[in-house]
Amino acid sequence: MGALAVGASWGMDASRSHPADAADKDAIDLTTQYPFYDQAEPAGIRTPPQRYSIFMTFDLVDGSLRTDLQSLLARWTAASAQLMRAEPIGQVQPSSDAGVGQDTGEALGLDAASLTVTIGLGPSIFDDRFGLADKRPALLRRLPKLPSDNLTPETSDGDLSVQVCADDPQVCYHAIRNLARMARDTVQTRWTVMGFGRASAGKGQQTPRNLFGFKDGTRNISTGADFDKYVWLKDADWMTGGTYQVVRKIEMNIETWDADRVSDQEHIFGRGKTHGEPLSGSVEHDTPRFAAKGKDGEAIIAPTSHIALAAHENNGGIKILRRGYNYTDGINEFGQLDAGLLFVCYQNDPAHFVQLQRKLGAADLLNEYVKHVGSGLFAIPPSPKTGHYIGEQLFT
Amino acid sequence: MGALAVGASWGMDASRSHPADAADKDAIDLTTQYPFYDQAEPAGIRTPPQRYSIFMTFDLVDGSLRTDLQSLLARWTAASAQLMRAEPIGQVQPSSDAGVGQDTGEALGLDAASLTVTIGLGPSIFDDRFGLADKRPALLRRLPKLPSDNLTPETSDGDLSVQVCADDPQVCYHAIRNLARMARDTVQTRWTVMGFGRASAGKGQQTPRNLFGFKDGTRNISTGADFDKYVWLKDADWMTGGTYQVVRKIEMNIETWDADRVSDQEHIFGRGKTHGEPLSGSVEHDTPRFAAKGKDGEAIIAPTSHIALAAHENNGGIKILRRGYNYTDGINEFGQLDAGLLFVCYQNDPAHFVQLQRKLGAADLLNEYVKHVGSGLFAIPPSPKTGHYIGEQLFT
Ligand code: HEM
Ligand code: HEM
Repeated sequence: MGALAVGASWGMDASRSHPADAADKDAIDLTTQYPFYDQAEPAGIRTPPQRYSIFMTFDLVDGSLRTDLQSLLARWTAASAQLMRAEPIGQVQPSSDAGVGQDTGEALGLDAASLTVTIGLGPSIFDDRFGLADKRPALLRRLPKLPSDNLTPETSDGDLSVQVCADDPQVCYHAIRNLARMARDTVQTRWTVMGFGRASAGKGQQTPRNLFGFKDGTRNISTGADFDKYVWLKDADWMTGGTYQVVRKIEMNIETWDADRVSDQEHIFGRGKTHGEPLSGSVEHDTPRFAAKGKDGEAIIAPTSHIALAAHENNGGIKILRRGYNYTDGINEFGQLDAGLLFVCYQNDPAHFVQLQRKLGAADLLNEYVKHVGSGLFAIPPSPKTGHYIGEQLFT
Repeated sequence: MGALAVGASWGMDASRSHPADAADKDAIDLTTQYPFYDQAEPAGIRTPPQRYSIFMTFDLVDGSLRTDLQSLLARWTAASAQLMRAEPIGQVQPSSDAGVGQDTGEALGLDAASLTVTIGLGPSIFDDRFGLADKRPALLRRLPKLPSDNLTPETSDGDLSVQVCADDPQVCYHAIRNLARMARDTVQTRWTVMGFGRASAGKGQQTPRNLFGFKDGTRNISTGADFDKYVWLKDADWMTGGTYQVVRKIEMNIETWDADRVSDQEHIFGRGKTHGEPLSGSVEHDTPRFAAKGKDGEAIIAPTSHIALAAHENNGGIKILRRGYNYTDGINEFGQLDAGLLFVCYQNDPAHFVQLQRKLGAADLLNEYVKHVGSGLFAIPPSPKTGHYIGEQLFT
């Protein structure tokens, strides 16, 4: 609508546009804001995936004290809440002094664009430089070595993770830049991935596509009951209401993929490319029938297809919440745009991810086309109460 | 609005949103389409800047023939028109063969999101490998060496340029990926910049901000008369209705910048940071008064400020159309998010840019904070007629 009005005011007969209505999935409302404090859930997890994301991990610099970590979490909390309200995190006034506490200004006048900030604690901060070992979230350990891991330390782990998601890339950039900047004396950036094009859907959103061209997120956790059962932590002391975040930076070899037949691609996923239907069904949201056999007596959905290996039906009922983003790092060594998936999933037990990735890493037909180069596990504390900050319970 | 509906249907009281109306500048209508053929102007120049952009240049591989270039321009033309209509550029059907002509699929089901494709011809294709010397657009030569150039060949020049702009990053990525892919046998990618956050405004758009936090695009070409006078080529044979595109990849040292006082920053640009007003005025669109003096007898807008050096009043009336994008290449050697401006401008005589950059490169107070690392000049042919293709006149 904005664009229609603009096109028209240019006096060019050059834009064409459908009238939008209140339920139009094709309009992005940049004024949407999500609250940070006092929520049943931390921001950025059940939130319908925004269109753009930056993920970054940080290491506390050598010699950091427990109070440095504490102060950083307190400042990040306050700043996250301000950013999510589209407020500058400091004063931007003519003639005032700039300084580390000052907002860099490039999002002044922009709306919140559904910005969420999700802050995670890595296993290494409980190791125990800071005397926090007794507060370690029960299941927070580095992920074990997994089949087909191809990880580099430069794109793995970190003491802290921050993920910002928004529908406006400039809002995203501004948020992570200012969070990184105010932490500069305490932490060093370890790795970052800039995601674009959500690779999972929230309720009410159409299923988006990953860079292999397939709908991604069709069978994801969506009901409140499943969130309670598989995502949020219960009876977990100060982590109750939080969750665990697994992040994998996965390179996708689109050159080989694109040279492959669509029928092979569909065999690999176990789903149709155009409509996303399971090969045993006809429309996207049909439940896959893994036992169904074709005339040739072979399983219609190959047992080593991605969905057959990952489906809860074949994993003792285990489900994870996937909330990934497509990314590109630019041109690769072959002069082609590289592609990848910033795979992010949430679960109340990291062992659920491990179980799935053990199977996928060992047998997935997709492995020929992907390479897991980065990895991290982080504990996501619950949403803080007003006047409190993320991880405050660590220091009491 | 979409986001509001979605938030509500999640049954969370977690999203807040203003009601949007038809003129709401804060809603992006992803269904907007621009036509490619039969236009008075090539796409992507006067078009109100979209939120996301990928710029890429290409070199024809050694041994390429004139017919390879011809065929590439014809195929790019047809594909650009399809992409701008949100049509897949090939068939994506279950069980069909994949191949270079096939769409990669990740934008299937997405709207056009205001996609524009702007194709440019570099000076090197007239050099004269292809026997095209007599068709060289009159003013198409490599830019001369300019003061404070810090160019690397890896991010400069190219036989051809393609810029795609859209309001959805996945639509952008899909477009450039498929254009690059269908050209794979003929060209190699030379350099690319992924832009986010437009750094200029179209008519009816609020002025956006660059990564120094300043409003950028306040005094840009906007009237039809100025477009005719300064942008479009007249009496230029087959290039009539086209223009020249200057591209500069400019690194911005945000570390130093952010440590600077806001008052210094304002002195450098000659404008206020919060509201963008000229220092001689009070609101953004006040005309700067370059002769105005303060009580101390000094010019209020410093003569070496960015706007004093660049303004048409101080350049014999010369104006250029700026249509740049912010970019980041990720984390730099200091572990900080790097920042930059993909400066793109259009003019009917590249000497206009050269004149401005000679002055700016020599004296601009901004130079302490920026580094021009990439550069290119390209001729943008006029919009082709249906059934014809960009640059067709080169081959007749
Ligand atoms: C580049 C890597 C990957 C790609 C391109 C990819 C893509 C897909 C696609 C297209 C689907 C089918 C549609 C859907 O239900 O969402 C799917 C399903 C799924 N994927 Fe992945 N995936 C990747 C990595 C992973 C990883 C690392 C895991 C977890 C270890 C995972 C777990 C799942 C699960 C649980 C499902 C749902 C299966 C079902 O219940 O039918 N995926 N993925
Ligand atoms: C990183 C580099 C640059 C930054 C951050 C920057 C930023 C700005 C800003 C904030 C303004 C004032 C608002 C406006 O009228 O748009 C401006 C004006 C302008 N800039 Fe730049 N600019 C950069 C490079 C350039 C270059 C390379 C040129 C051309 C050689 C240029 C030409 C102009 C012109 C013509 C104006 C309008 C001046 C007036 O008429 O008041 N800029 N720029």
